Amino acid sequence: MEGTMKTAVMLGIGQMGFEEREIPKAKDNEVLVKLEYVGICGSDLHYYETGAIGDYVVEPPFVLGHEPGGTVVEVGKDVKHLKVGDRVALEPGKTCGHCEFCKTGRYNLCPDVVFFATPPVDGVFQEYVAHEADLCFKLPDNVSTLEGALIEPLAVGFHAAMQGGARAGQTAVVMGAGCIGLVTMMALKAMGVSKVYVVDIMEKRLEKAMELGADGVINGSKTDAVEEVMKLTEGKGCDLAVETAGTQITTVQTIHMTKKGSTIVLVGYSKSGEMTLPMSLALDKELTFKTVFRYRHIYPMAIDAVASGKVNLKGIVTDIFGLDEAQKAMDYSVNNKADIVKAVIRIGEE
Amino acid sequence: MEGTMKTAVMLGIGQMGFEEREIPKAKDNEVLVKLEYVGICGSDLHYYETGAIGDYVVEPPFVLGHEPGGTVVEVGKDVKHLKVGDRVALEPGKTCGHCEFCKTGRYNLCPDVVFFATPPVDGVFQEYVAHEADLCFKLPDNVSTLEGALIEPLAVGFHAAMQGGARAGQTAVVMGAGCIGLVTMMALKAMGVSKVYVVDIMEKRLEKAMELGADGVINGSKTDAVEEVMKLTEGKGCDLAVETAGTQITTVQTIHMTKKGSTIVLVGYSKSGEMTLPMSLALDKELTFKTVFRYRHIYPMAIDAVASGKVNLKGIVTDIFGLDEAQKAMDYSVNNKADIVKAVIRIGEE
Amino acid sequence: MEGTMKTAVMLGIGQMGFEEREIPKAKDNEVLVKLEYVGICGSDLHYYETGAIGDYVVEPPFVLGHEPGGTVVEVGKDVKHLKVGDRVALEPGKTCGHCEFCKTGRYNLCPDVVFFATPPVDGVFQEYVAHEADLCFKLPDNVSTLEGALIEPLAVGFHAAMQGGARAGQTAVVMGAGCIGLVTMMALKAMGVSKVYVVDIMEKRLEKAMELGADGVINGSKTDAVEEVMKLTEGKGCDLAVETAGTQITTVQTIHMTKKGSTIVLVGYSKSGEMTLPMSLALDKELTFKTVFRYRHIYPMAIDAVASGKVNLKGIVTDIFGLDEAQKAMDYSVNNKADIVKAVIRIGEE
Amino acid sequence: MEGTMKTAVMLGIGQMGFEEREIPKAKDNEVLVKLEYVGICGSDLHYYETGAIGDYVVEPPFVLGHEPGGTVVEVGKDVKHLKVGDRVALEPGKTCGHCEFCKTGRYNLCPDVVFFATPPVDGVFQEYVAHEADLCFKLPDNVSTLEGALIEPLAVGFHAAMQGGARAGQTAVVMGAGCIGLVTMMALKAMGVSKVYVVDIMEKRLEKAMELGADGVINGSKTDAVEEVMKLTEGKGCDLAVETAGTQITTVQTIHMTKKGSTIVLVGYSKSGEMTLPMSLALDKELTFKTVFRYRHIYPMAIDAVASGKVNLKGIVTDIFGLDEAQKAMDYSVNNKADIVKAVIRIGEE
Repeated sequence: MEGTMKTAVMLGIGQMGFEEREIPKAKDNEVLVKLEYVGICGSDLHYYETGAIGDYVVEPPFVLGHEPGGTVVEVGKDVKHLKVGDRVALEPGKTCGHCEFCKTGRYNLCPDVVFFATPPVDGVFQEYVAHEADLCFKLPDNVSTLEGALIEPLAVGFHAAMQGGARAGQTAVVMGAGCIGLVTMMALKAMGVSKVYVVDIMEKRLEKAMELGADGVINGSKTDAVEEVMKLTEGKGCDLAVETAGTQITTVQTIHMTKKGSTIVLVGYSKSGEMTLPMSLALDKELTFKTVFRYRHIYPMAIDAVASGKVNLKGIVTDIFGLDEAQKAMDYSVNNKADIVKAVIRIGEE
Repeated sequence: MEGTMKTAVMLGIGQMGFEEREIPKAKDNEVLVKLEYVGICGSDLHYYETGAIGDYVVEPPFVLGHEPGGTVVEVGKDVKHLKVGDRVALEPGKTCGHCEFCKTGRYNLCPDVVFFATPPVDGVFQEYVAHEADLCFKLPDNVSTLEGALIEPLAVGFHAAMQGGARAGQTAVVMGAGCIGLVTMMALKAMGVSKVYVVDIMEKRLEKAMELGADGVINGSKTDAVEEVMKLTEGKGCDLAVETAGTQITTVQTIHMTKKGSTIVLVGYSKSGEMTLPMSLALDKELTFKTVFRYRHIYPMAIDAVASGKVNLKGIVTDIFGLDEAQKAMDYSVNNKADIVKAVIRIGEE
Repeated sequence: MEGTMKTAVMLGIGQMGFEEREIPKAKDNEVLVKLEYVGICGSDLHYYETGAIGDYVVEPPFVLGHEPGGTVVEVGKDVKHLKVGDRVALEPGKTCGHCEFCKTGRYNLCPDVVFFATPPVDGVFQEYVAHEADLCFKLPDNVSTLEGALIEPLAVGFHAAMQGGARAGQTAVVMGAGCIGLVTMMALKAMGVSKVYVVDIMEKRLEKAMELGADGVINGSKTDAVEEVMKLTEGKGCDLAVETAGTQITTVQTIHMTKKGSTIVLVGYSKSGEMTLPMSLALDKELTFKTVFRYRHIYPMAIDAVASGKVNLKGIVTDIFGLDEAQKAMDYSVNNKADIVKAVIRIGEE
Repeated sequence: MEGTMKTAVMLGIGQMGFEEREIPKAKDNEVLVKLEYVGICGSDLHYYETGAIGDYVVEPPFVLGHEPGGTVVEVGKDVKHLKVGDRVALEPGKTCGHCEFCKTGRYNLCPDVVFFATPPVDGVFQEYVAHEADLCFKLPDNVSTLEGALIEPLAVGFHAAMQGGARAGQTAVVMGAGCIGLVTMMALKAMGVSKVYVVDIMEKRLEKAMELGADGVINGSKTDAVEEVMKLTEGKGCDLAVETAGTQITTVQTIHMTKKGSTIVLVGYSKSGEMTLPMSLALDKELTFKTVFRYRHIYPMAIDAVASGKVNLKGIVTDIFGLDEAQKAMDYSVNNKADIVKAVIRIGEE
């Protein structure tokens, strides 16, 4: 496809703009995708507000956005499993395929990954993207490209649930009812976990958790979450806890509320990068801590869970903005963190 | 509780009768349960028809039945988690607690297990039983004692699914749509498996499979089950197969229909005890074969799955007989194997 | 056996004494063991110095010691696998056999465990003990009762190695070259781990580590342990780290020195009970933290490793005291922590 | 490197010859290796004797040999971890890197693998080969290129041991003392397995097994292997059995000699492709059958085991032939199967 496309770019901290860029060409193993929806992630907001995450520093103009869904409009000559018109969810990280991590199937740990919207690699707040076809997953008829865009955060939730060894018969607790907390709760339910309780301090988010299928919620600002979990489990403690809030308080609570021998999955990043934890208690209980970095091998499973109605992915979307409104979308998201579960940029018409 | 109870006994091959026996006393760590429903298992029928299973030979009078549900009427003094009036499902095997298998949590392999209706241990086609309280699992309000009785076969299905490493995102095939095939299908669904297809040669059973939640069925007498599975999986093969039919033909088919690197779970016993299998093909595909002997640690998970509506356990019951009709129940079951999914003896009123 | 036996008792903080107590009777499922060696553990010293560990408070007179080896002198009538004259290592914890943890094979987490020298349960600095026969493991001819006594700490090392998923081909680092660090190093080697490096700040301990089979040692007071591990692994980091020193500094180092996706096993208790750790780095590397509480199912494996010469258990013994010297043994151990790897009380003649 | 190289080719069934072929060029991601030793595998003999294995049919002239060791003489420009002069073992299968199996780290199941000496892909009975650098593993100074060549069969043994979950404390039995049986025995020992017994019917092979480190051997033509294993394990049965003989008799024996709940690893192909097995017994014992197709992720571990002296790989070599003697090497190997453990072609001087 010839021509140019509209691209929303971050021009500096707190400042968005637009550029006309050439529509990329699909290589032989790639497809060109006309994007329809791209989710706004917490990391996008963090780059927008501060210009950097750790060692990753934005050099403007920079394109944010790594949660895309769209429709295939061109197909590279080596691509077999996709055709023009297919609607797809795009997994955002291209990996090397040769390192120890790729070879052993843990490609999310590939040191040479090229990941959308991770400096210096541009993201996809734009009309088109050419992407490795292997990373483009066809959506069934009953899954929209809006949902396709949200497969990315859902994949984090499923990977957390998988890391935790979630299974039928368990009682799990999710700390935090933001976007990742909610998709984790839904992933746990889709994997057959019997009871999933969600802890947060904002009533509105807890209501959303109930609406999306939580078996119960705990407002940590009103009750002692540990005591409440003990009560709900008849004094036994939960079998699995997933921490998505990224605070020391909630992480410490998971150590207290879990049963001996159980697993705590850490997903949320703390602001300081450090946490002070009661490790001797963890030893006495012989707990396991699993951590989560992105995800691997999750897209097909996540798409299937949405298609079969096990996960209500549309239900997490609270705000939709047009691509023209990029500045407003980012500013609103930054200023209303408490109210937004998930904001999405609509690029074209579905 | 003083007095006697009605007990249905097998007096010989094909011959049932009744005895009045003393109501047993609950020991300190036991409860006395007034039984309400006891399922009739294939092994009960086998003993009834032939007098033996392998080395286990019936010495009449012998009590059949090992799938009981009832209500606690007396509680031993060391029992803490149950009280009079609690409705319970009874796990039928008492294990030694000291052998290598018990110690490592694989109590189903305990060589000294005392298991209902496995000669010379009597079963429970009778009004009362005293049983180790640890093996009596309280039923929630929305689970009936009829369902409680059927937790036993469901446990086989869940154990098969667990042995197979069943999980969200997979496509599984169950060979056989008898009682065990159906509960396995439901267990797989409850564990989040995406697609579960069921193969049988009787249309009526396949209808039942669809009614209970299968994603599709294959009549192996009309179509080639392997080809059909290949078609349904776009040529990839299934991720997991569970063989419950106990025939060589269906077992060979699982080796052909599964994807490389996948797992086949063997549940069904063949008549001759032997099977001729294409093992070189299994090696080329690097398949894993897991086998199933009863179950372990499954009752709470299975009860929860019924309580939460994930498993329609009542749906497998096709026939209910009174305890007085023991002879008729056994004869009818033997003579109508094709039509019966699950027959149950009702002992008292629920 | 009739009569009394000499028993060393803790009379108060820093004060040992003796009592003549009745020789216990072996119950039907027990054996009476004439003790020959009992190791002195760090926890014994802690009770001796402070009178308590967490909620466990010594009520004098109290018997310390939970690492015993000896010879069977009486056998309960239900005991089949042992006879008079058998030399045995005694696993110190009797568990309930009925709780969720016992049932699933994780008996080390049993809440009702009765464990030698854990208040209010007396230990075994005494001439005889009656103990559950299932917990007494026969020693082969080439394993002494001195080594039998030390199977207990070795079991901690093996359990740590097992929890870490240690296997052939890996490079592992053990933080700390005290008794537990050294036995962990030897357990890792016995399990086939390719390279095991040991970090400590005392040269003498590092020499011991080399003597016992470490592939290399790092003096953390002279070089940066993280840099050194990176150098030794050609910049890759190690596959597995086991922390036995119980300090925050060494725990933080394990997070820096391990490869992405790898496992850190935490064995050492910190003094304060808390640690401040760089958890965001742990998430970026998708690390797993396993913790260790005592051990389970390890004695046979550990005895076998000693018998086959894979583990030089005698090599860790630095000091042997007679039972009469109990006061001296404890005082010397308290005052020479840096020099002692393992002190042992000799009860009788071997 | 310019010029031609001597290449031994199979001209027809039972007929070897030579061709001068162009020395291949190393691509950017490849190295050119001057070969020094290439092992002769049973599959080479099978192609030589029959012209085919299953669907793989030899089209002459065809180059056999897939177990190479040699020295790097040219390095492609993208290669970083190797330099001219490095001595290497070559893993023979190039995989696609993109399929479901490659992505999940199970590259040995890649349907598009290009594997030396598997028609129509030529093998390496020749002076040079250009090969993907990622598949060339540098040998330490104390590992020869002869041993480098034999890393390939050793990898099968290690993969079998890994599939079986081999670990310290176990008792294992290996059926068959041919090349694969012997390397499996050594791999099991290197992974810390306590006792490894080897069963064969040829005394000479059993002597070799003892020489290479087996803990005991059983001549199945003189004693009942099952009874003998039961005796050696005090009636318990072994924890793990690995079948490398490829016969129904030995496979049936593994089902009888293993402990309940244990694992049988199937490595040997039967002649007919089928086996008749007592599957009901397998179910009663809840056995697991793992199968082995080649190996994955094993080369570094296997090289390390040789370098550290845990595996005596030179010890399996019984016959060395020059490249000029290709015909003699093949004929002798075919005619003396009982006497040969491992024959090797020496290509150049080491």
